[in-house]
Amino acid sequence: METLSENTCFGGVQGVYKHASDACKCDMTFGLFLPAEAKDGPVPVLWYLSGLTCTHENAMTKAGAQGWAAEQGIALVFPDTSPRGEGVADHDDYDLGQGAGFYVNATQKPWSPHFNMWNYVAEELPALLTTNFAIDGERQAITGHSMGGHGALTLAMNLPGRFRSVSGFAPISNPTGADWGRKQLSAYLGDDESNWAQHDSTLMMRETGFDGPILIDTGTNDQFIKLLRPEALAEAMAARRQQVINRLQPGYDHSYFFVSSFMEDHVTFHAEHLWS
Amino acid sequence: METLSENTCFGGVQGVYKHASDACKCDMTFGLFLPAEAKDGPVPVLWYLSGLTCTHENAMTKAGAQGWAAEQGIALVFPDTSPRGEGVADHDDYDLGQGAGFYVNATQKPWSPHFNMWNYVAEELPALLTTNFAIDGERQAITGHSMGGHGALTLAMNLPGRFRSVSGFAPISNPTGADWGRKQLSAYLGDDESNWAQHDSTLMMRETGFDGPILIDTGTNDQFIKLLRPEALAEAMAARRQQVINRLQPGYDHSYFFVSSFMEDHVTFHAEHLWS
Repeated sequence: METLSENTCFGGVQGVYKHASDACKCDMTFGLFLPAEAKDGPVPVLWYLSGLTCTHENAMTKAGAQGWAAEQGIALVFPDTSPRGEGVADHDDYDLGQGAGFYVNATQKPWSPHFNMWNYVAEELPALLTTNFAIDGERQAITGHSMGGHGALTLAMNLPGRFRSVSGFAPISNPTGADWGRKQLSAYLGDDESNWAQHDSTLMMRETGFDGPILIDTGTNDQFIKLLRPEALAEAMAARRQQVINRLQPGYDHSYFFVSSFMEDHVTFHAEHLWS
Repeated sequence: METLSENTCFGGVQGVYKHASDACKCDMTFGLFLPAEAKDGPVPVLWYLSGLTCTHENAMTKAGAQGWAAEQGIALVFPDTSPRGEGVADHDDYDLGQGAGFYVNATQKPWSPHFNMWNYVAEELPALLTTNFAIDGERQAITGHSMGGHGALTLAMNLPGRFRSVSGFAPISNPTGADWGRKQLSAYLGDDESNWAQHDSTLMMRETGFDGPILIDTGTNDQFIKLLRPEALAEAMAARRQQVINRLQPGYDHSYFFVSSFMEDHVTFHAEHLWS
């Protein structure tokens, strides 16, 4: 593992690291914020999964999360959104290929064998973090924005016991029913839609739900809201009697101006459950 | 108007008053909490509509609202849930007739001509309050529990501009689709379901929505949750992109132990909008 940068930040350290990934069969880069408390021993961790076109860097520089994480004494990890590099398949569309891994393990060419973001985020990176950093693997929570909100919700529901809490900023909530989803799921997983269900948080909510609290914020002026389908997940959560705070925030759009406006609430929400 | 009682309460006055009602053609009793600030001039008011079997008294004694209202300098009004008295029709069922007015104007015998709770809460009582007490009619908000949550939501959506904000504790959310609703709407309004639509908050949400913020809490262990249908309203609010905080609270039931647990949040929510 190579340290690309380390900056002191809110009394802790914002680092960027690169490592050879078995899951993605290429080098992968991630950001990690460790609060001051990590000098004294393992701290809880909040995962932040980013959206389409993002790298590890976007949220790390624009979401304003480190200050709140420092206040709560928790780490933040910012994975990349796909494998990358010259040997990795790509597509001219912004929403397919590099920058658009969708948090699945691709079974279809040309995306297989590199596009295994599910295994990367669910298995490889957690093991690397707890081995190499002062991260408490028993205290994990997860959030994300847009495609990353989709990833956070589907990982949380598919890995019971892993995450104490899950939240989302404008998550893609019903990808099997929208163009942000059908396009990527068919490309990466093939046309058999039975393989898509575990990657749709509305379908997962109907099937299993999440054994912990959920917080979701979506802006009412989100320019992509028809692709997000918050109404489908809202119905499914209420029908399951899922513990949730589901908020539609007037006037906000899909940008990081929206994400940063509610970051304090999300970090505080997760910290409450990570420290309980 | 007759003063039945006045008690000093959190530095203000909790009163109970009786008056001859034109809308209901009988004597009606209501509770009114005025904070200390009302001595100096009109204050904003939060309406609290109660649920099935309740009188003006239940929330006044069990919801724990006065302390929070005093802190925020706002009044609380607690209307009764139906006309009452010997000359008023009733039914052996707890959920029809006296104590179960459902916040509609009955068109059907024997409920007509007394059961006009819509007109009572929307017109007669507001006029009486602003005439006789230090209440600012320009600063009103509304909440309620169960049948009262239904009343709050339907009044708020049918009277645009009247209420700055609306909230509900375990509201009956889709009465045209549940036994808490179909029974009362058919009895009071007759079998033509087109007359029911304005009294169904899910249908009203689909049709018009609410021009302000909404807060809703429902307990996941609510013993009546199948009758409340929170999933229908959740879907409709998200589909409309309605400004809302919709929470499912784990473990809570339908009781006043639930209502009182979240009263601070509701009063604070309304106060924020009443004072802005």
